Amino acid sequence: MVQSMETRHRVVIVGGGFGGLRAARALARLPAELTLVDRRNFHLFQPLLYQVATGALSPANIAAPIRSLLKREKNVRVLLGEATALDAKKRVLFLSDGELAYDTLVVAAGVRHHYFGHEEWETLAPGLKTLEDATEIRRRILLAFETAERESDPARRRALLTFAIIGGGPTGVELAGALTEIARHTLRGNFRAIDPSEARVLLFEAAERILPGYAPDLAAKAAQALTRIGVAVRTSSLVTGLSEGSVTIRQGGSEETFPARTVLWAAGVKGSPLGGTLAASAGAELDRAGRVLVGPDLALPSHPEIFVIGDLAALHDARGRPLPGVAQVAMQQGHYVARVVRARLSGAPPPPPFRYVDFGSMATIGRGAAVADLRIVRISGMLAWLAWLFLHLMYIVQFANRLLVFIQWAWSYVTWNRSARLITGGRR
Amino acid sequence: MVQSMETRHRVVIVGGGFGGLRAARALARLPAELTLVDRRNFHLFQPLLYQVATGALSPANIAAPIRSLLKREKNVRVLLGEATALDAKKRVLFLSDGELAYDTLVVAAGVRHHYFGHEEWETLAPGLKTLEDATEIRRRILLAFETAERESDPARRRALLTFAIIGGGPTGVELAGALTEIARHTLRGNFRAIDPSEARVLLFEAAERILPGYAPDLAAKAAQALTRIGVAVRTSSLVTGLSEGSVTIRQGGSEETFPARTVLWAAGVKGSPLGGTLAASAGAELDRAGRVLVGPDLALPSHPEIFVIGDLAALHDARGRPLPGVAQVAMQQGHYVARVVRARLSGAPPPPPFRYVDFGSMATIGRGAAVADLRIVRISGMLAWLAWLFLHLMYIVQFANRLLVFIQWAWSYVTWNRSARLITGGRR
Repeated sequence: MVQSMETRHRVVIVGGGFGGLRAARALARLPAELTLVDRRNFHLFQPLLYQVATGALSPANIAAPIRSLLKREKNVRVLLGEATALDAKKRVLFLSDGELAYDTLVVAAGVRHHYFGHEEWETLAPGLKTLEDATEIRRRILLAFETAERESDPARRRALLTFAIIGGGPTGVELAGALTEIARHTLRGNFRAIDPSEARVLLFEAAERILPGYAPDLAAKAAQALTRIGVAVRTSSLVTGLSEGSVTIRQGGSEETFPARTVLWAAGVKGSPLGGTLAASAGAELDRAGRVLVGPDLALPSHPEIFVIGDLAALHDARGRPLPGVAQVAMQQGHYVARVVRARLSGAPPPPPFRYVDFGSMATIGRGAAVADLRIVRISGMLAWLAWLFLHLMYIVQFANRLLVFIQWAWSYVTWNRSARLITGGRR
Repeated sequence: MVQSMETRHRVVIVGGGFGGLRAARALARLPAELTLVDRRNFHLFQPLLYQVATGALSPANIAAPIRSLLKREKNVRVLLGEATALDAKKRVLFLSDGELAYDTLVVAAGVRHHYFGHEEWETLAPGLKTLEDATEIRRRILLAFETAERESDPARRRALLTFAIIGGGPTGVELAGALTEIARHTLRGNFRAIDPSEARVLLFEAAERILPGYAPDLAAKAAQALTRIGVAVRTSSLVTGLSEGSVTIRQGGSEETFPARTVLWAAGVKGSPLGGTLAASAGAELDRAGRVLVGPDLALPSHPEIFVIGDLAALHDARGRPLPGVAQVAMQQGHYVARVVRARLSGAPPPPPFRYVDFGSMATIGRGAAVADLRIVRISGMLAWLAWLFLHLMYIVQFANRLLVFIQWAWSYVTWNRSARLITGGRR
């Protein structure tokens, strides 16, 4: 791949998430023409999406326009567009309304919810991947309390005040904690016919314990903390049925149906449809969840000029465990791809294979409670919570958002209030 | 209207805007059972809606849950529901899913856009009354720049970068000023193919001058200020046609068609459909814009137990001029209705007829520029702008929102940035 004398090397990046954005920033320093395409005009700080879903933050607090973030990188062009197809031989990416020729392609298109063959569950139990998902979940949660206030039948009222969360990973745990806080504290005194603190939050996890990706002792601490604030944690519990108003769970050999008008999905992800496009056009191999198997340099073995990074890439660490779908992995991969491209452009030997440096992972359970596996030390409780707050504030892009989030967190901490409790969209 | 010994006087308020909320707070001090019904769960600070439409503020910054605002008024029940019909004889208000019996009814249901018989224009030129309107307008404005960046045809690109605002009242003036600031400053350096500062903002007003409700010298100052920042102000200009991508204007005897992909409607309002319900069931008279004619005590002459306040009420001041559709009028009317009801409940003589105390009106043109008619003095420029900032901050409910708005304004002032530039909903 030698740089032509006439035109600069053309890099096209699909996706402006953590991986794509980091890749764009790192590649911008090379003598290349960069184009970043995203379906949305903003970069989203996904780790805080559950706070939008639970009314603690506004959508704009955790999002920033991609072109504004890259405005100083003058060789980066940002396009609003949707990648729909690929001609890997001719090196052309097709958008729904145009096409882009490339010399290097970086695909960072992420993942979507996975309903494991029950796609009809999507409307019954929305997942949490986009800002629209978050405002829809917020709408359902708040509407359940509003409808319960006007419901006279005790059984129906109880179902309205039951919230079931499917999936005990970090998102499920964080949603359960936040929902409990809303019911017990935020809405206190707001209703006349119902007592919001009577709401029940059920957390179902198919595996033997919640937070399966965390160390067992931390997961146990998280389960204890959830139980203490009133969440009903049910492990080894597989969803077998969903209907408007109920969820059916198989635990051991028996099935049980729980009346619950609000069901939220946090159980699994599958690769973006672009993974299928790469399989069809570039001979990429996909794993069972539709993620793209990449080589040690994050490129497709069949097409070394195509890289896949972030949640869409399937890669394992030295111990054979799959890399988690977190921002840190995506960002390190974005940075690594720039190193590979730089070496290729300058004719230098390629860098050593990608190696994920794991700084740890953390999840909040609620006010003053979190678990953090920082590799050298595992902490829980208030200290983990403060570490979580600090790290998340630091990683939010744009100073204005950092300040706004900090103020809203401080305000919520003091008053238990959540300032973004709006029912918008949907039924008006 | 004598209070029964068994049951307390039942007051039903429809609408949680400025009028309804103030009425609820004032009536809560009486020995009465209050119910406030609104289709939305939040009170909206409408004067700042244009700042949401132009990405300066987030929806939640200018909205607060009604039941949270009234949680200390224990005799006030807040219901999420839509009033659809009325039996004035039996004193029953029908909701889309229930009914409410009342002794006193306060209707504060507000107004909607008025397209003067061209209702088909609504999708072509959205108006600005709800949060959904605001995010839709924000989406259209930002999408126009995004699409222009990818458009190679100069004529189409020019139409994409032309924004037409129909109506030169305060909302139209404020939108024009904010749009100009976005184009000239906020988006600077964000694009590679277009120069956003080449965008044109056209403001069309059918009357002979903009801000017809303001003193002529202030309106002239506002027109000068708009022209100075680059807005094309066209008065005596009546919209005669709208299509996808163009607006046709009649000025004097001639018609002219302007290619403009984004057209915003700020030209007129008509009463909520509840006005028609009152006419049909309670014999209320409506004016041409569908507003309800009320007596000097704000009640229907045919039904003294039904009050209409706020934008939906048609009332004139001592000089025969219609009261403006502003928050101050609605709040004073809400307060007045409580006085009337208190007098009736206690058997005291009724208060003197409602009289609007006009503290003035103001509109911003942009950064450092506003006009304010404070009755005792008329000011414009920086001083008026600072007065506008201060008064609007003071009137925003909830301290958290006040602080968040203040920080975002300060941030925008220093950096020209607007933190809520998200394209959400609609085409994703």
